[in-house]
Amino acid sequence: MLNDILVKIEKPSAEFLQKGKDRNAQLLMPPRAMGRLHEIAEQLCSIYSTDKPVVERSAVFVMAGDHGVVEEGVSPFPQKVTTLMFNSFLNDLATVSVLAKKENVNVILVDVGSKFTQTDFNKPIKNIFISKKVLFGTKNFTKERAMSVDEAIKTIEVGFEVADHFIKKEKLDIIITGEMGIGNTTPSAAIGAVVTGNDLELMTGKGAGLDDEGLRIKIEAIKKGLELHNPDPKDPIDILSKVGGAEIGAIAGLILAAAYNKKPVIIDGFISTAGALLAYLLNPITRDYMIAGHCSEEPGHIKMLDFLALKPILNLNLRLGEGTGAVLALSIIKQAANMFNNVGTFADIGL
Amino acid sequence: MLNDILVKIEKPSAEFLQKGKDRNAQLLMPPRAMGRLHEIAEQLCSIYSTDKPVVERSAVFVMAGDHGVVEEGVSPFPQKVTTLMFNSFLNDLATVSVLAKKENVNVILVDVGSKFTQTDFNKPIKNIFISKKVLFGTKNFTKERAMSVDEAIKTIEVGFEVADHFIKKEKLDIIITGEMGIGNTTPSAAIGAVVTGNDLELMTGKGAGLDDEGLRIKIEAIKKGLELHNPDPKDPIDILSKVGGAEIGAIAGLILAAAYNKKPVIIDGFISTAGALLAYLLNPITRDYMIAGHCSEEPGHIKMLDFLALKPILNLNLRLGEGTGAVLALSIIKQAANMFNNVGTFADIGL
Repeated sequence: MLNDILVKIEKPSAEFLQKGKDRNAQLLMPPRAMGRLHEIAEQLCSIYSTDKPVVERSAVFVMAGDHGVVEEGVSPFPQKVTTLMFNSFLNDLATVSVLAKKENVNVILVDVGSKFTQTDFNKPIKNIFISKKVLFGTKNFTKERAMSVDEAIKTIEVGFEVADHFIKKEKLDIIITGEMGIGNTTPSAAIGAVVTGNDLELMTGKGAGLDDEGLRIKIEAIKKGLELHNPDPKDPIDILSKVGGAEIGAIAGLILAAAYNKKPVIIDGFISTAGALLAYLLNPITRDYMIAGHCSEEPGHIKMLDFLALKPILNLNLRLGEGTGAVLALSIIKQAANMFNNVGTFADIGL
Repeated sequence: MLNDILVKIEKPSAEFLQKGKDRNAQLLMPPRAMGRLHEIAEQLCSIYSTDKPVVERSAVFVMAGDHGVVEEGVSPFPQKVTTLMFNSFLNDLATVSVLAKKENVNVILVDVGSKFTQTDFNKPIKNIFISKKVLFGTKNFTKERAMSVDEAIKTIEVGFEVADHFIKKEKLDIIITGEMGIGNTTPSAAIGAVVTGNDLELMTGKGAGLDDEGLRIKIEAIKKGLELHNPDPKDPIDILSKVGGAEIGAIAGLILAAAYNKKPVIIDGFISTAGALLAYLLNPITRDYMIAGHCSEEPGHIKMLDFLALKPILNLNLRLGEGTGAVLALSIIKQAANMFNNVGTFADIGL
């Protein structure tokens, strides 16, 4: 199935990219005076093959998974928090849900690989919950593969299937990556170091709030895992199966679904961009469908974005994940389309 | 009148700033994981003296004025464009009106000092137009004072009166600076150099699109004006009367109205921040009511913001003005309040 998807992904339209540039040049302002907004509008034209881009219907997919490497002490939070947060995502108490509600973004929580099973939701569910468990937490990658190659492929396929389903069913114009998983900056840093070739020390940060000693332990754990497995920097399935995690594979799959359906995808922070690196390795065309929502406080994030040649829209010192920065960026993307479609031309004022 | 206003401006609440910090510390996320959004929410608490900040009703004030210094060749656009744009602001063809409409922001165009008089609006007016002309374009400051001291004071008072009126009448929660005036990066660069003490060359940019020779002419014109007038860096009325312009004085007055009414004001780009520098010199407490919407492409802008110790919310390579960057930033400010008010606490999930 994965190979069938990969071969069907097509480049966005060069013709409509040019039409976007032409229209931007006519707008009632000095040439390209709205900076990044012109670039975003052109990317939308190119992706949708239109000169009237509409960005209205959207969803953020919160992919959830747990990580065996947490037993090495790489996170200040206990693993049960991943599942404890499910209620919050589903009942608009989590930050991403609160931001999404205001921006009229659907929230879809997908359990791809959490360790526990949450079924006793303590309130009426406002958002969508989908259980598509490929595994019950990854294995500790300092000792063994995080998951099998088959499982790694399956996490990508699950991400694709869920996103593809909702893009079609809800006629989504744009989709947004999000995630939850205690410890998931650890596999993300590992993926970032392997794919970008940067030193592990530069790619690893304090995540949800480690102290200096915690950071040292985290770097040591990743180093141990990478020495044990020696993942192939060009092989996304090899990397994913060796360090994890399930939600990162699902994010890669979601990005494939965006490109497959010719919809833009807003990439959130550090973990989401680790997923974007895998999607890029699976098919580099996916990059043309990505919009980087923000640059996170996690120091390796900007290096991942640089590798992908993506310029983040926001830089607000965020380090929460969940999809929060990407949901915030959506309002700017909507305004880029609004500007492009509705600002007058010099001809309109007789100049 | 101006002195009466200045003495009545009070500092925001230290008590509610602390309450804001306390609430942020309880939110369901690692400490301050939403970065700038926490700071914005705390500033709102402090300004409104509340622990439940509401940011709903807003207006952008587009202050318009012309500049005698344009005859020196400091702008690639003819002076009549200032007035020609009035129809666009009022009928949702200008960029700021298009962005404002989507964000539900009122647009109020105030003619403080345009050279021509526009009365024949060629379509039904959708937004509000107020004619409060203090002068018909400033004088060429390379040869004489841009305006008299009385006129300079009057432009500030007009900005205050209009903003104060609408804050009260429309029960605005937040106000936004905007402007239109061919040539107005020139007095803004002059104000920036005088107030911040930076070299003129560092404070002067290509504005709406000068070439290198145009930039040289612009710097020469400002240099000539500053040598002729030698404005007092501590005296905002002296600076304003010597280099102008009317819309910059009105922006300073609008910022005074925000502080006077204990409402936040989003500062747009280079020209708006020149107005903010004057407001700060008039009463430094006004700074506590300012939120910097974005950092412009105009190179002197970041130096003005640094002088005011303001951190811009956005950095999108904008260089249009009008209020566009500040209107874009409003969505982030609204989300900061939304996050602060509505995200759950760790207690909510039993942790």
